[in-house]
Formats: sequence, structure tokens, C-alpha cells
Amino acid sequence: MNEHTYKHIELTGSSTTSSDDAIRNAIAQASKTVRNLHWFEVTETRGHIADGKVAHWQVTLKVGFTLEG
Amino acid sequence: MNEHTYKHIELTGSSTTSSDDAIRNAIAQASKTVRNLHWFEVTETRGHIADGKVAHWQVTLKVGFTLEG
Amino acid sequence: MNEHTYKHIELTGSSTTSSDDAIRNAIAQASKTVRNLHWFEVTETRGHIADGKVAHWQVTLKVGFTLEG
Amino acid sequence: MNEHTYKHIELTGSSTTSSDDAIRNAIAQASKTVRNLHWFEVTETRGHIADGKVAHWQVTLKVGFTLEG
Amino acid sequence: MNEHTYKHIELTGSSTTSSDDAIRNAIAQASKTVRNLHWFEVTETRGHIADGKVAHWQVTLKVGFTLEG
Amino acid sequence: MNEHTYKHIELTGSSTTSSDDAIRNAIAQASKTVRNLHWFEVTETRGHIADGKVAHWQVTLKVGFTLEG
Amino acid sequence: MNEHTYKHIELTGSSTTSSDDAIRNAIAQASKTVRNLHWFEVTETRGHIADGKVAHWQVTLKVGFTLEG
Amino acid sequence: MNEHTYKHIELTGSSTTSSDDAIRNAIAQASKTVRNLHWFEVTETRGHIADGKVAHWQVTLKVGFTLEG
Amino acid sequence: MNEHTYKHIELTGSSTTSSDDAIRNAIAQASKTVRNLHWFEVTETRGHIADGKVAHWQVTLKVGFTLEG
Amino acid sequence: MNEHTYKHIELTGSSTTSSDDAIRNAIAQASKTVRNLHWFEVTETRGHIADGKVAHWQVTLKVGFTLEG
Amino acid sequence: MNEHTYKHIELTGSSTTSSDDAIRNAIAQASKTVRNLHWFEVTETRGHIADGKVAHWQVTLKVGFTLEG
Amino acid sequence: MNEHTYKHIELTGSSTTSSDDAIRNAIAQASKTVRNLHWFEVTETRGHIADGKVAHWQVTLKVGFTLEG
Repeated sequence: MNEHTYKHIELTGSSTTSSDDAIRNAIAQASKTVRNLHWFEVTETRGHIADGKVAHWQVTLKVGFTLEG
Repeated sequence: MNEHTYKHIELTGSSTTSSDDAIRNAIAQASKTVRNLHWFEVTETRGHIADGKVAHWQVTLKVGFTLEG
Repeated sequence: MNEHTYKHIELTGSSTTSSDDAIRNAIAQASKTVRNLHWFEVTETRGHIADGKVAHWQVTLKVGFTLEG
Repeated sequence: MNEHTYKHIELTGSSTTSSDDAIRNAIAQASKTVRNLHWFEVTETRGHIADGKVAHWQVTLKVGFTLEG
Repeated sequence: MNEHTYKHIELTGSSTTSSDDAIRNAIAQASKTVRNLHWFEVTETRGHIADGKVAHWQVTLKVGFTLEG
Repeated sequence: MNEHTYKHIELTGSSTTSSDDAIRNAIAQASKTVRNLHWFEVTETRGHIADGKVAHWQVTLKVGFTLEG
Repeated sequence: MNEHTYKHIELTGSSTTSSDDAIRNAIAQASKTVRNLHWFEVTETRGHIADGKVAHWQVTLKVGFTLEG
Repeated sequence: MNEHTYKHIELTGSSTTSSDDAIRNAIAQASKTVRNLHWFEVTETRGHIADGKVAHWQVTLKVGFTLEG
Repeated sequence: MNEHTYKHIELTGSSTTSSDDAIRNAIAQASKTVRNLHWFEVTETRGHIADGKVAHWQVTLKVGFTLEG
Repeated sequence: MNEHTYKHIELTGSSTTSSDDAIRNAIAQASKTVRNLHWFEVTETRGHIADGKVAHWQVTLKVGFTLEG
Repeated sequence: MNEHTYKHIELTGSSTTSSDDAIRNAIAQASKTVRNLHWFEVTETRGHIADGKVAHWQVTLKVGFTLEG
Repeated sequence: MNEHTYKHIELTGSSTTSSDDAIRNAIAQASKTVRNLHWFEVTETRGHIADGKVAHWQVTLKVGFTLEG
């Protein structure tokens, strides 16, 4: 809420279960190395198909975090 | 299906549970005051992150309803 | 991974349950008549509203498959 | 032309006759309840098909009007 | 309104008369070979010019129809 | 069809009658000073409203013509 | 931060001074009648020209506010 | 140039050589089964990377052809 | 407000001072050679950076003017 | 790098050889009559097809040049 | 101007004063850790509202810099 | 193909030779410091002009790689 600067990175998470889970996986993975994750925005929802079923959900998101000065 | 006029409003629903739930919450809230809600279209899916997890799903949608003449 | 040519078709799947299910239904239906479905990409998420609730989720997707030469 | 503030609303008009008529119908309907309508901009042109013919033209437009201070 | 799957095709209709007529022509032509046409959405309006006049209106539209299962 | 170069200009035509007429007016006006007009593409359809009616249709189009070498 | 629903309205503010001032004017005008304004997003920056100078800046913005349940 | 109706299909061609070649391959493959191919428009240029080099160029294009009545 | 035709040109103005000033500079420059400038619309805001500061603001705008018949 | 104003024009170059060549042709043609061409940006890549091959590559580009004051 | 490769990062700067200042703040902050910043491009202008006033301007920009090889 | 997370970076490669070469140069440069590069997608094709010729091709691409967990 102050005069922070934020940086955005773009990630694709994947999941065999659901589109929401692909988002959760990307955020969990990013939080291992980046502190201060604040928000995300979905930019693309895709997936791979095998045997007439969704084999992997793949969701691309921008994730924003505070740059520490 | 007749020569109706429809109006669209834009809402953001939120949920701690899922992206679909954020949509359901926005529609439930809008239906308290607007009659004749007909359809919706998702325009943005975002969320807040806390402790490396999705704290809130926030989905923006356009909602259309019949204007009564 | 070779010099294949892919064709894309655009479908809208629907579901009374969830947005992910509307995607699964479209892919299951397409796989009845098209072989070699490879991937999908969501282009629109909409739905019908009845009684202040989501009556049908309707998700439009592009689906790609290998053209056999 | 002064320091007015304008508000925009989004409407879909329909017509069995033509796309222009769908626009005219939306504006006529809106002008029953909103004063000072100034301009419109078409954002989408769609329609329903029945028996291989256009049954209804449906045109979505943004309509702007002066907020009175 | 049930759990149908819809397919979309993209067509360009042309007319020497008007932009609406180019749409009607595309739909009439498509309905010769595709049953269950439901809706259309205009994606592009173009035309050819000859002698300082519109020689042909060319309107591109997506047309949706029910896939029969 | 040869190795021509084309130039595009952007115009807004207006008409009190119809959206198609606004396009015809822009092309007629441009053809007074530019030779070899070939095609047009609509980029925006707007209009002014007066007394709850469309006072002027305003259609913006790109117009292409052959550069003479 | 809770399970609120937000509504967005679209406004155009104008100013003879600057583009930022056009935004400030739209927000000041909206806050006379709407409580709980939270954020804005600029969607278009335009203006009128007179005598080779900017006569009016006109900035269109979406403004979001909390729906009270 | 007459009142033809055109249909568009979307393809992705691939090539190990160049982006133009991926386009040529898609068109050559499509022309095996579709007559009257008229034009194409590139909508996406992607590729796979292996060992720090472009392994495959993949170009997506819309291809238009005349519907025979 | 009559059946005028307008032409649009696209310019990039630059300024060492501010983004609004880059717009004012482009319009002042254009008004030296084009009469009847009516309106502008910003399409891009960029700039050059030197020594960690904005060295030049560069704003691209469409400018519309009346074609005299 | 000073407070220059730039103007952009939109051209389509064509070539029977390659997409890059269509760009080179458009720039060569434009440089016959416009001085100070600075940069280009591709906005569309299309082409004509004959006998299952690319007959003409057609690339549309914006070209920017310095306005001399 | 040589065969450099550039990398782009996306930042959001904020300011209580003006939209231009939010850009300046983001660039100042980035230049603490990244050398060779060359240009920026604004992709979004937003802000927070408090008490009917702009509390924070938040401008998102892409910033490009030279990769040193 | 497993539950990997991918990260995307945006680069601009340049070349005096061709647009494809600008892409190859960006990927070669990125592969010096980033392992597991998987795919790219072109987002912009630009260039500098000198003496009526393309002096530098500049192609912007997103490049995706696997995040190692």
C-alpha cells in the first residue's frame, strides 16, 4: 500500500486433476524461491489430451511480488 | 427470444475455495437485487496469495439480464 | 515432434456441474469421431443463469489433432 | 465540452429485421429511463439462426451519457 | 440447453448489396450442408472497392451448431 | 497480384441513414483524391445519439490502395 | 479481503489541465453517489483538439466498489 | 469475386528448417484434401527448442477456400 | 456533426518532461501542416531510459481531422 | 533521440519468394518517396495460394519516419 | 544497434503523486540491481481510491535491457 | 509431461540477416545461462531501417523452460 515496486513473473503450472490445481501447483513451486508473492492473474488455460481425456491441465499465470528495496 | 433489450453489468466475485465458487458467489449476490439474470461471461481470473497458497480466488464476469420495458 | 500438420477445431462443451467438466464433456464428445486429439486451449468461459444460480457452464475451446498424411 | 463526467452502460439490442435496427431498439429502450444519451459504440454483432435464416440480430453496444453533477 | 456440445465453423459471406446480406448469404449456404445451426458472431467486415464504390461486402462470421451424439 | 506495394489509410465516414451508408460515404470521399482504392476493413462502428435516436452513424475503416512505382 | 462481491462501472472524466486530472475528476464525481470506491483502471486516453492544442483530456476508467450485502 | 461463400480452417504446419517452410508444409498438406485454397493468414509462430537450437518451427495459420454451392 | 469524412494519422511525440507533454508536442507539430485537427487517442506510451531515469517519454497517438470535400 | 515527432504509415509489401522479402519490398518502395524511414513493425502476415503453393507472401507493416519541423 | 539480445521484465511502480511518477519510481528501483536499462512500455495504469481520491497510482511497465554475452 | 512448472521469459533477438535468425540468436544467447529451454512463441517482429533497407531484424519472443524443483 506504500510506494512499493512489484515484479511480475509468468509461470505455467500443470496438474492431472483440475485447472485450479494447476494454479495451486505453480504458486507452491514459485513460493519455494520467491518471497512476498502477492497476487496472480490467469493468462491462458490449456491442456494435453490422451485417450479422449484431459491428461494434464496447464494454466499460465502472472504472479506478482514485492521488490525489496 | 423476442425483441428484448439486455443490460450487462460487470462484477468480481471472490471465494476462498475455488474459481467456480467465486463465480457462483457473484451471481448469488447479484440475484438479490437484479431480476432476470440470464447469462455470464468470465473476463478475468485473479487471486490473492498468502503463505504460498491461494488465499482468495477473484473472478470478474459480465452478467446479462433482460431490461423490462 | 516430426513435420506433422495439425488441425484445430473449436467446440463449446457444457455441464451443469463445473467449468472443468464442460471441457471434459467437449473432449469426450469430440473423441468419438476424431482420432489423435492432442491438446486444447480455452478461449471463452460462459454460462446460463436460472434462479440466481449457474444452470449450465459453457466453455469454448480449440482442440488440436494430427492430420494423417 | 466542459469538465463533464460521462458514464457508459453496455446493452444488447435485438431485432428480427437488421443489425442497424437492433442498435436503434437498444437506444430507444435505454432512452426511456436515461437522459442525456450522447454516443454509442458497437462491441459485438451476433444473432440466432432458425431454419437457415437469421431469426434475431443481437448487437451489443456501449452507450455513454452525461452524469449530472 | 442440456449438456450438448457445439461446434463452430468460420465462414465469409459476400454480397453486392449490404453487409447484413453478406451474413444472410453465408448462413443460407452453410445451412445446405449443416443441420442445427444455432447462432453466429461477426468477426470481420471487409469489402472490395471498384470505381470508388463498394463492389462486394465480405463479412466473416463464426457459426455454431449442435453436435449430435 | 504482382509484387505491388499497398498503402492503407484510416477514415471515418458518417451518415444519418445507416452504418453501411457511412462506409459508402467515406469511400466516395476518398476516391475523389486517391486512385486505385482496392479494399476496406471496418475497425469501429460508433454514432451520436440525439433525442433517443441515432443522429449520426460513424464507421471507421482502413482503406487500401496500390502504390504506383 | 473477505468473500466480498465488487461491481465495476465505466466512466470518462475530462479536464482542461492534464490526463491525471481527468482521472481525479471522474473519481471525485463518482464518489458523490457511490460509497466504497476501491480502485480504478484506465481503459482509454483521448482528447479534443482546438487551435493546435489539447482542449480537453478525456480519460475512460473502470472503477470498482464493494457491493454491500 | 462473385457472391461466393468461403470457409476458413485453422492449421499448424511444422518444419525443421524455417518459419516460411512450416507455412508451405501446412498448405501442401491441406491441398491434398481441400480444393480451391485461396489465401492464408498467420495467427501464431511458435517452436520447440532442443540443445539451445530451434528444433521445430510451428506456425499456425487460417486457410480460406471457396465453398462450392 | 454533418456528413463529414475524417482521416486519422498516427504520430509519436516525444518529451524529456512528461507523458502529457509528448502528446502536446505531437499535436503542435502536426498542426503546423494539417488543419482541422479534432481529436486524439493514445495508443502506446513508451520511453527511453538513461542512467536509471526516463530520458524521453514517447507517446503514440491517432489524430483525427476533417477531410475537406 | 531529441524531441522529434514521428509519423507512422501502414503498408503491405508482397513477394513471390519469402515473408522477409515482402517486408524488404515494402520498405524499398516506401523509401523512394519518404525520407528518414526509421523502423518497422509487422502487423499481419498473409498470402495468396495457387495450386497448393504460396503464390504471394503479403506482409503488412507500420513504418515510422521523422517529421521534419 | 548490433546483434544484441535484450531481456524484458515487467514491473509495477506506485506513487501517491502522479502516474508519471509511478513510472519513474519503478525505473529507479529496477536500476539499483539491473544495468543497461534501455526502454520501457506502459501496459496498464491502475490505482487505489481512498476517500474519493486517488490514494496510489500504480503503473505496470515492461522494461528492456541488454543481455551481456 | 509430468506435474512440472514452467517459467517464461521475454527476449528480443536481433540479426542483420533475417527474422528467423533473430529468433535463433535470442535462443542461443539464452541457452548460455538457462537450462531446459523448451519452446518459444513470437510476440512481435520489428526492425530498424537504414538507407531504405532493413538494417536489423528484431524479434521478441517468450521462451519457456522447466523449473527444477
